[in-house]
Amino acid sequence: MQDCIFCKIVARKIPAHVVYEDLSTLAFLDIAPASEGHCLVIPKKHYAKLHEMSSKDAASLGSSLAKVAAAISKLSPNYNLLQNNGEAAGQVVNHVHFHITPRSQQDGIFFKTSRKQLSEAEMQGLTKKIKTLLKH
Amino acid sequence: MQDCIFCKIVARKIPAHVVYEDLSTLAFLDIAPASEGHCLVIPKKHYAKLHEMSSKDAASLGSSLAKVAAAISKLSPNYNLLQNNGEAAGQVVNHVHFHITPRSQQDGIFFKTSRKQLSEAEMQGLTKKIKTLLKH
Repeated sequence: MQDCIFCKIVARKIPAHVVYEDLSTLAFLDIAPASEGHCLVIPKKHYAKLHEMSSKDAASLGSSLAKVAAAISKLSPNYNLLQNNGEAAGQVVNHVHFHITPRSQQDGIFFKTSRKQLSEAEMQGLTKKIKTLLKH
Repeated sequence: MQDCIFCKIVARKIPAHVVYEDLSTLAFLDIAPASEGHCLVIPKKHYAKLHEMSSKDAASLGSSLAKVAAAISKLSPNYNLLQNNGEAAGQVVNHVHFHITPRSQQDGIFFKTSRKQLSEAEMQGLTKKIKTLLKH
């Protein structure tokens, strides 16, 4: 995609610190890392959101995530994967990217969520809804 | 694995609200959701950490992530994927699981990170280190 910064990195039109590359995926250092070794793993093909990806490209990406994670785990046995879809989810660059972020105790990174308790009827309703959506 | 709660869910020894299943992966509702539709997607085989996964199982998981995300995106176009490895990264259950969490504006969920700036020499050093680790 012409104006996509990650497509430009894939095409080597702008520089990046590439750590891994195969036919369909690329991994490079985040330019503003949350911790040392913070990488991004992306599909080479432009997909704005994860749910737009073909099954084949998503499979290749899954395999590359485990591969890059294996290297990162040697730098730091603790690490997170984070992937954001949509503005309200914190997505800034509209090209699918998984953050792999090495973690350590008291590193100042945290994920705040307040966990709810739904009723059994609500859980069953949601299960039915998602199962139906998966068929379409 | 005998004492793993997610292996017990896979074996149907304890109940869960399963939304998707195929030969090698399972997806079910999180029992304490951060938002409505919060799912976990897991490999059926027991892997404690992402970096331990076989390329084949990681590929199947990647494909299932996109599939379940496609259903979740119809509930909520904004969503995060989060996967934690190790205690310092917030991992509680030692069986690989990706959270898919629907998001909306001001939902009280946030990810706090302080982004750093490394020198070009530091970035090059890290790139070299990770590339070397990827070869082993």
